[in-house]
Amino acid sequence: MKKIGLLGATGSIGLQTLNVIKQHPDQFDLVAFSAGKNIKKTQEIIYEFKPKVVSVAKNDDALILKREFPNVQILSGEEGLVEVSVYKETDILVNAVIGSVGLSPTLQAIEAKKTIALANKETLVTAGHLVMQAANENNVKLLPVDSEHSAIFQCLQGEKEKNIERLILTASGGSFRDRTREDLQSVTVKDALNHPNWSMGAKITIDSATMMNKGLEVIEAHWLFDMPYDKIDVILHRESIIHSMVEYHDRSIIAQLGTPDMRVPIQYALTYPDRSVLPAAKRLNLTEIGMLHFESMDLDRFRCLRFAYEAGKAGGTLPTVLNAANEAAVAAFLEGEISFLQIEDCIEKAIKRHHVQANPDLQTIQEVDLETRQYVRSLI
Amino acid sequence: MKKIGLLGATGSIGLQTLNVIKQHPDQFDLVAFSAGKNIKKTQEIIYEFKPKVVSVAKNDDALILKREFPNVQILSGEEGLVEVSVYKETDILVNAVIGSVGLSPTLQAIEAKKTIALANKETLVTAGHLVMQAANENNVKLLPVDSEHSAIFQCLQGEKEKNIERLILTASGGSFRDRTREDLQSVTVKDALNHPNWSMGAKITIDSATMMNKGLEVIEAHWLFDMPYDKIDVILHRESIIHSMVEYHDRSIIAQLGTPDMRVPIQYALTYPDRSVLPAAKRLNLTEIGMLHFESMDLDRFRCLRFAYEAGKAGGTLPTVLNAANEAAVAAFLEGEISFLQIEDCIEKAIKRHHVQANPDLQTIQEVDLETRQYVRSLI
Repeated sequence: MKKIGLLGATGSIGLQTLNVIKQHPDQFDLVAFSAGKNIKKTQEIIYEFKPKVVSVAKNDDALILKREFPNVQILSGEEGLVEVSVYKETDILVNAVIGSVGLSPTLQAIEAKKTIALANKETLVTAGHLVMQAANENNVKLLPVDSEHSAIFQCLQGEKEKNIERLILTASGGSFRDRTREDLQSVTVKDALNHPNWSMGAKITIDSATMMNKGLEVIEAHWLFDMPYDKIDVILHRESIIHSMVEYHDRSIIAQLGTPDMRVPIQYALTYPDRSVLPAAKRLNLTEIGMLHFESMDLDRFRCLRFAYEAGKAGGTLPTVLNAANEAAVAAFLEGEISFLQIEDCIEKAIKRHHVQANPDLQTIQEVDLETRQYVRSLI
Repeated sequence: MKKIGLLGATGSIGLQTLNVIKQHPDQFDLVAFSAGKNIKKTQEIIYEFKPKVVSVAKNDDALILKREFPNVQILSGEEGLVEVSVYKETDILVNAVIGSVGLSPTLQAIEAKKTIALANKETLVTAGHLVMQAANENNVKLLPVDSEHSAIFQCLQGEKEKNIERLILTASGGSFRDRTREDLQSVTVKDALNHPNWSMGAKITIDSATMMNKGLEVIEAHWLFDMPYDKIDVILHRESIIHSMVEYHDRSIIAQLGTPDMRVPIQYALTYPDRSVLPAAKRLNLTEIGMLHFESMDLDRFRCLRFAYEAGKAGGTLPTVLNAANEAAVAAFLEGEISFLQIEDCIEKAIKRHHVQANPDLQTIQEVDLETRQYVRSLI
């Protein structure tokens, strides 16, 4: 029985993780989780999974839950989040929070020697060097949950790193893949949230539409697989059936395919290095789909992907700026404060004004993160 | 340095194997090979690779070679073929002969504990149970060279057999994939030899056009990967870019892709479990190709594939009959003695009249093979 901790239980990845756990009561036991402000959902999860420790965002909500569940340890705030992350019984911590707020709990869980199933890509974007260093020092496995990185991870099984020629990330193109830059001037939040293939949370769906999601994934892949940026390519593949690929030195390419269903990569992280049945997932039928399409990626059309490559290659504090500016700008777009194309403008300005500091420590990263968010707010 | 033995050096797979060896003089050394009647090519190969033992089909040719290469051990006939197969210095024997004539040398090489790189699928079709039993008893690896089986083998690395849901072999459809059965009545040998994707020998190109090649591959996959027939599917994929796939219990599919180039699977068998660069092979560019197509396989259009599934499931001596009838009928078609559709008719008649014997020994298989060929000849 693997004991699971889960950060961000009421989000899209969190709920799909719970769905996987539910399908395998003989294999997985949810012992601890964190949630935000969705107390109704939190109550349901406690009733169904009977965890030992739960943390929510606000102290007021924690007080209500304490009365309802006297036998569960109920915590709140950042402190509670960390308590859940390092809970002593946990074998694997699924980190499914959104944004760089996931960094500190990840680092602390690594120090507590927990295996990490990482859905929180912003953690690796903002401080990949610190996270990977901590993982290496503590001999902790970082298992990818993003479908692209899980695909690459699966394609690397039984292979040697030295034989890798390049990684090929596939991108669906997001909600606006068939629109020109001119079309993008007038798109709404509702348009942007309508992803053609994947059902995901709001932030990542906007990131898909700007292609920043793929940019964050390129940086994530750089850290997870120790791969230089010139060996990480992105191609447009509108069906999202091939989730990503690895090319080897002998020109052989290994790819992972499936219907777009996040439960498959989530479960793979939980069962790794084994696999389990997942009857609820739909079987891929290629003859029904008939055709798979591939196009090259246009970095002028999708400027955020270019920003991400540039920030990743520059390194130091620049990926932190990229990520913080993006988080602040996407939040403003979702609130209706800026237009879709202004997301890019905010990020570009934040990157241009920043003086890169090499090899930043955690405190520097947190300061740059905060300062960048304030700067983006000042633009709005 | 791996010492290589090669059966069928002057055929298509043989020459491509030599090309791979030539690209890696630091890794591979050709120590022994067999050829048929192409003495000019045989001389060239001896000059270039300086092997220690060579066998050709005819004694007269051997005498000529002996005079020319006094320091090379020159042999001939079936006896010479076996000598090459079991040559003491050989680490890996590449079996690239065509047809069930490859069976006996394979079995003897297995008993001599040689690792086998098997391109000779007829060996497994005609006597899979004997070959696999010998390989298990002698703890000998059988490494696939067929592009489809190499693909599956690559997709199985780092995975557990118990987690396999099914194997998916891809088929280009061969020279006549866009023709109806009516169209097939008048096709010529020249038409049939014009394969759209792969440059291969005559026998396998005809087998591709009849779809018998895929049928033989289904039986080969059954033996190589210990997989029941209802877990081996075939789909039409006209680009031959995805070379085959493995579906796992969790609905995840791993696929191997590349430009159609037999040197990639040949080299993989020689370097396994490692890989090497193969600069001569063309890199796959999916965005240039743009689209991959998949269609379901029609067993009424491609009757030979149905025959193969039926023969495989029945087992015993029936796969031997299937293979021998096919070899005899294809030879007759290539000689212009029968029409294209008569190949199927010959195979069907041979199968229908045969009384299956379960678990045949080597002698029975050889008798059934010979008797079937004689029967097919009697039909012509």
